Amino acid sequence: MDELIVDKRLTALAKSLPSSVPFVGPEAQERARGEVFSARLGANESVFGPSPRAISAMEAAAREAWQYADPEAHDLRHALATHHGVPVENVFVGEGIDGILGLLVRLTVEAETPVVTSAGAYPTFNYHVDGFGGAIHKVPYRADSEDPVALISAATAKKARLVYWANPDNPMGTWHGAGVVERTIKHVPDNCLLVLDEAYIDTAPEGTAPPLDPSNPRVIRMRTFSKAYGLAGARVGYAIGPERIISAFDKVRNHFGMSRISQAAALAALEDQAHLADVTRQVAWSRAELYRIARENDLKAIPSATNFVTIDCGGDGDFARAVLASLLAQGIFVRMPGVAPLDRCIRISCGGEAEMAALAEALPRALEAAR
Amino acid sequence: MDELIVDKRLTALAKSLPSSVPFVGPEAQERARGEVFSARLGANESVFGPSPRAISAMEAAAREAWQYADPEAHDLRHALATHHGVPVENVFVGEGIDGILGLLVRLTVEAETPVVTSAGAYPTFNYHVDGFGGAIHKVPYRADSEDPVALISAATAKKARLVYWANPDNPMGTWHGAGVVERTIKHVPDNCLLVLDEAYIDTAPEGTAPPLDPSNPRVIRMRTFSKAYGLAGARVGYAIGPERIISAFDKVRNHFGMSRISQAAALAALEDQAHLADVTRQVAWSRAELYRIARENDLKAIPSATNFVTIDCGGDGDFARAVLASLLAQGIFVRMPGVAPLDRCIRISCGGEAEMAALAEALPRALEAAR
Repeated sequence: MDELIVDKRLTALAKSLPSSVPFVGPEAQERARGEVFSARLGANESVFGPSPRAISAMEAAAREAWQYADPEAHDLRHALATHHGVPVENVFVGEGIDGILGLLVRLTVEAETPVVTSAGAYPTFNYHVDGFGGAIHKVPYRADSEDPVALISAATAKKARLVYWANPDNPMGTWHGAGVVERTIKHVPDNCLLVLDEAYIDTAPEGTAPPLDPSNPRVIRMRTFSKAYGLAGARVGYAIGPERIISAFDKVRNHFGMSRISQAAALAALEDQAHLADVTRQVAWSRAELYRIARENDLKAIPSATNFVTIDCGGDGDFARAVLASLLAQGIFVRMPGVAPLDRCIRISCGGEAEMAALAEALPRALEAAR
Repeated sequence: MDELIVDKRLTALAKSLPSSVPFVGPEAQERARGEVFSARLGANESVFGPSPRAISAMEAAAREAWQYADPEAHDLRHALATHHGVPVENVFVGEGIDGILGLLVRLTVEAETPVVTSAGAYPTFNYHVDGFGGAIHKVPYRADSEDPVALISAATAKKARLVYWANPDNPMGTWHGAGVVERTIKHVPDNCLLVLDEAYIDTAPEGTAPPLDPSNPRVIRMRTFSKAYGLAGARVGYAIGPERIISAFDKVRNHFGMSRISQAAALAALEDQAHLADVTRQVAWSRAELYRIARENDLKAIPSATNFVTIDCGGDGDFARAVLASLLAQGIFVRMPGVAPLDRCIRISCGGEAEMAALAEALPRALEAAR
């Protein structure tokens, strides 16, 4: 019985946290159904894979795996600084954007610290804010896009310490141009930091990301090797921001936390920009396929700047959940937004010809089943 | 100038933390000296390397690196549970013991929470406690060993939430037998948790670790693939403890934080117990070599149950620091305890014939230089 009670050794905050997790992995779903998915289109991974040079680098690093990685990730940080034309002091490398978000929240949020995000935006950010006892205030999406004016307005009204904005957006795939982003950064209130999650920037049109200006204390920008670079399983993200925030990560991070193999993979992937360009072409092809498949089923696809397309199933949340359930039962791993009215949609990652064909076959059946 | 001030967005706790880090990596030292070390004997890595099966598993997983890892680490956790004969609900897998210590401290320590450790014990544990504002109380080593009686006595007096004990110990290499450990666990006060760091258990004599009893709410035991398993660069540690603590990790961890390649490596390494046995034989050979080298230099080696040997340089801390500096200058990466009287010693990781020969050549010169 002892095991069923909450341990007295836990802090009051830890005791108060729910056991729910932001995302259940596809593997858990596969174990529950007793069968693996035939198309893995739910986590916005890149089925197009990483650069072959990254794979070679991982193979070579595997033979050095008895050595800890450089805790300063010196080579990768310098390569990123050069690539982006920013000082290395403004670059932090961590275990995916998820890991960096956790550290950033830890550095800035304590009990009841006000934080602003959008209702239906990235749940892992909220998970971290809850985890440090922050007070989350949510603004609604506007026409399936995050609403930067509303975000800034709420950040100002609530005296928020952090305001989170993904551009391009997940889960909707929509985006704002660089002009809007620049204007938004300018209006971030004093003592507030804009967390600009640009995980999907590599597949967005030119003119989405404004130039990086790490001297600006109002914004920290997050990038990742998990999406277009095809290295989700290696867990490498990075942040570019003001030095006084970047240097503070050193006070709280797990210094030897990043795998040596992952650092090598990211460095090699960064050096193969031709592969990245090739992937973005394949992503563009797959987005067009997803638009076409939606059209063929009389559904509306939401134009996307990401490596996924969100499709309006034309009904309410229950209808979309029924479509999703049928797709899962047919072996197609997909996900959907969690909050109304976004949850009338399902979200499908880009894939190759095999995955697109499997989806084209399964979707009409799923719609039929849901009706 | 803006960059030099501490950011107002940081919490009071974050602002108060020092910028010092628990360990500077050898790569930073190599960059400073403009030359790589010829012998890497400072971080208790295993120069004997991981199982060839782990390397093959990493190579295979590299080709799947576009996929996130299973956030539940299902296969690895189940394999560990089977290997140790404990329920899977009592096993947590994380990014090295360092990462797990950070999460455990986060779950249990808040401002001024009393915590007990030994003066000179693992600094990364203290780093995490400081990072969450806990109040650290230290007891001295006794004859170069951690002193479990003093630890329990201080934990009781200070009403500590956590008490940290590494057995075998780092940085001294000394150890207590299973009987002492069992007796110590029995005396952990109510509402206190013994953090029993067994990172070096795989190279310790039979009879060092008492049987695992994860139903006991007084202790959580930490193990790692970084030492004898030779996978420091992959970052995989695990904890075995009471379910109510193990399940709480899910509330605060970075769910997709572990590399897919690392999970595969650890699983394959665990399945190759013959390789582990072979490594422990090589470690025993190297320890004997280190004892011999110490003797040849009229120094006292402290008997070790770990994959390193700590050698008393026969002088004070300044003398040992001078010996260390000369070894580093000769290309031998070693470390030393940070606190008196332990700092009269240097700590040398086990190595193969080449590393032992390099040390045997460098040490007399280092002693000469220090005198």
